Amino acid sequence: MLRGNFLSSLPDASTAERIETLSSFPGRRVAVERIVSEGQTTPPGEWYDQGWDEWVMLLKGAARIAFEETETELAENDWILIPAHRRHRVSFTAPGTVWLAIHGDRE
Amino acid sequence: MLRGNFLSSLPDASTAERIETLSSFPGRRVAVERIVSEGQTTPPGEWYDQGWDEWVMLLKGAARIAFEETETELAENDWILIPAHRRHRVSFTAPGTVWLAIHGDRE
Repeated sequence: MLRGNFLSSLPDASTAERIETLSSFPGRRVAVERIVSEGQTTPPGEWYDQGWDEWVMLLKGAARIAFEETETELAENDWILIPAHRRHRVSFTAPGTVWLAIHGDRE
Repeated sequence: MLRGNFLSSLPDASTAERIETLSSFPGRRVAVERIVSEGQTTPPGEWYDQGWDEWVMLLKGAARIAFEETETELAENDWILIPAHRRHRVSFTAPGTVWLAIHGDRE
């Protein structure tokens, strides 16, 4: 059976953000990801515009997500549901930031 | 936008386990749940036999999940993917146990 510890054996993200798929639900393309950031942000002027809902929780560290009209800060254990096509970018991550992301099925 | 802190405003689970749906992915019946346990377990002799995969992570506390052939202990931040139709029961929870559960789409 697939298992692990979310905060153990973290990949080295010193040169780039690291994304691992921990599990996926077959046939549905819903995926559970662990994302490790060491200060990386979305490049200025770039936005994510995803065709699916994304549920994210910050397990460790700190981060800010910018939307077109507002910016929100996430502390440890804060979660947020980002609806499909809500344009957003990661505007700040602290060193050692670890996220859980659940991507809904694509349209 | 839907948001919250996973470990804040916990419901009182002193008399029964409390399950809240935090988010769901419309049309897909994939749901993200928070479960608070205060020592509750699955009644002896009862088993869960679910028609969908379930991904669970222990955010706080401690727990044991029994399968037919083995029993596994979960510490904080441990996660496990329980495949559909893998019979299991919760054989132990510590007071103040908080789980994240992601239920895949039903068959």
